[in-house]
Amino acid sequence: MSSAVAAPASHSVPAIRVPIALEERSYDILIGSTLLDDAASWQDLPRAAAALIVSNETVAPLYLERLRQRLASQYARVDSVILPDGEQHKDWDSLNRIVDHLLARAADRKTVLFALGGGVIGDMTGFAAAIYMRGVPFVQVPTTLLAQVDSSVGGKTAINHPRGKNMIGAFYQPARVIADMDTLDTLPPRELVAGLAEVIKYGPIADAAFLDWIETNLDALLARDKSALAHAVKRSCEIKAWVVGQDERETGLRAILNFGHTFGHAIETGLGYGEWLHGEAVGCGMVLASDLSVRLGLMPPEFLTRMRGLIQRAGLPVRAPRLGVERYLELMRVDKKNEGGEIRFVVIEALGRAGMRGAPDTLVAEVLNAHCD
Amino acid sequence: MSSAVAAPASHSVPAIRVPIALEERSYDILIGSTLLDDAASWQDLPRAAAALIVSNETVAPLYLERLRQRLASQYARVDSVILPDGEQHKDWDSLNRIVDHLLARAADRKTVLFALGGGVIGDMTGFAAAIYMRGVPFVQVPTTLLAQVDSSVGGKTAINHPRGKNMIGAFYQPARVIADMDTLDTLPPRELVAGLAEVIKYGPIADAAFLDWIETNLDALLARDKSALAHAVKRSCEIKAWVVGQDERETGLRAILNFGHTFGHAIETGLGYGEWLHGEAVGCGMVLASDLSVRLGLMPPEFLTRMRGLIQRAGLPVRAPRLGVERYLELMRVDKKNEGGEIRFVVIEALGRAGMRGAPDTLVAEVLNAHCD
Repeated sequence: MSSAVAAPASHSVPAIRVPIALEERSYDILIGSTLLDDAASWQDLPRAAAALIVSNETVAPLYLERLRQRLASQYARVDSVILPDGEQHKDWDSLNRIVDHLLARAADRKTVLFALGGGVIGDMTGFAAAIYMRGVPFVQVPTTLLAQVDSSVGGKTAINHPRGKNMIGAFYQPARVIADMDTLDTLPPRELVAGLAEVIKYGPIADAAFLDWIETNLDALLARDKSALAHAVKRSCEIKAWVVGQDERETGLRAILNFGHTFGHAIETGLGYGEWLHGEAVGCGMVLASDLSVRLGLMPPEFLTRMRGLIQRAGLPVRAPRLGVERYLELMRVDKKNEGGEIRFVVIEALGRAGMRGAPDTLVAEVLNAHCD
Repeated sequence: MSSAVAAPASHSVPAIRVPIALEERSYDILIGSTLLDDAASWQDLPRAAAALIVSNETVAPLYLERLRQRLASQYARVDSVILPDGEQHKDWDSLNRIVDHLLARAADRKTVLFALGGGVIGDMTGFAAAIYMRGVPFVQVPTTLLAQVDSSVGGKTAINHPRGKNMIGAFYQPARVIADMDTLDTLPPRELVAGLAEVIKYGPIADAAFLDWIETNLDALLARDKSALAHAVKRSCEIKAWVVGQDERETGLRAILNFGHTFGHAIETGLGYGEWLHGEAVGCGMVLASDLSVRLGLMPPEFLTRMRGLIQRAGLPVRAPRLGVERYLELMRVDKKNEGGEIRFVVIEALGRAGMRGAPDTLVAEVLNAHCD
């Protein structure tokens, strides 16, 4: 496979290490290009007799063999489970396929799982690692921008339930995250754009200067400039690591990472998983959450204009699907952030600072009516 | 229900508190009689709008209403899920029933789960609490001797898989354990005896004097003397707490708690869950593991005679079912303690001290042939 390996020098970027400090659960995120073929990035992984690569039908033909060869020198047996692609398959059935495979091979509890794919593969593989024999190590090899900036950092693992997204899961940290920018070469444009939604998110919630940087570099990001992408991934991971480091189990601050997600999850669940991509729903959800921040008197109207403009320029939807206000409210009432029935939202209190607020149904209805098709 | 409540004063024993120190996951085990009706034992539980009691068809008619009334003063809503009784129902289906109930009621992530029943209910409820919205609090109210001395202490939660017992689970600590000796009044004799297997276990692995005490007090325990039972539960919990406190996630020492369990799990899985009770399988497994300790030259032959005598006097089986040596070996190869294919056993190295040893298949076969019907 070595002929397919080396990227032109002009496109390669030096590897960046972002350490995540969580005491005995600390780990490193490695960000760069040609990492899949860089032996140094794969040293000192947990030792075991066997490794299991979990991937999907889209990603496996592209990268499975390279990863398998990379691991063959370290693990006596390298197996793989290839799942169907898509959020609609992030369910008990897929989880069981991973677990059944491990049990059929009598995999012991040092077996290392490798998640090769996007956020869906990462979330499911992480959850399988969390519950197989009460916990085996796992490594994230995210191949989508969304997974690189968001779902491979922070230890949230989960599967969906017909009644709600990510309702079943665990907090479980990977042993390492290896984010190779070269894997973004094969990412469909729609998925690249969806990933940008989570990058954009980090600006308003935590870093006003990063919001400026994104606006300035949006065209480079859309053109897949690897240096711009690596910086966006690095800064996103740093911000997320800072937040997660203070609140690993989401008792408070960490909830700000869900800016746009309360509306976004309702859109995803309401349409049925897989209709809109997660990032698309979050992009649109940020428009609604920005408007809510304005209507609550926290931000000036210009903030909504700026956010909607950037989200639209990125190619993300800014109009929400017409599910009906009652259905939206019903969907948002099962959100994990709620307590005792009140719907709570992440809102922007100042550029670079977010908070949690409850909002009356009537105000939420105004927001929905203003942005629904 | 108050008429059914007060035990005769002569049978009541003062409440004992065994603190389990696990940093921010620390909790108390309360052991005594009339605890279900003692308001003090239920103070300062996690606050929430709703509580969910999980129980089974055998225990619910006996204690559900009393627990519901006890909780009604603290939680605005107290629901219940009643599962079928038995180890064969410790599976995905039962787990899903708990999760589905929570989601159908839009239970938020402060909702407190109460496990009212034996080890099966405790393990499943704890695992449901571990994975619902990535973790909600739960309280153990064990109503069997086995659950009181063993499965409600240590944070192991799990469900079974057709290929192996407790293969899917999590380490997750309860907020409190409330062990009311009065609930043992309704325990069938066979289950009381099964629970004694785990009590007996703590002698050879950790406390030679406790082994003497059990031999002296076995008749009182079998006659359900509450003072003797409370002491047995207390000492068992203390020993387990000491072991777990040093090794919460079973990387080393904690494995000694599995004395008799490698053979025992093979018996349970080989016969099909529910045929033998867990404690019966462990009792018989301890006879085999004692013999293995002797054959490995670690203990004198008198140790096997003593253990077999005590286990038999307790009313536990001392002859293993004839599954065939090859089937036993196959079943034991999927044990979680194994690494890289070798079968490892907890053995006794001296009275009150256990260790882990690998054993050649030929020696294991000798042990099996000596004790199989």
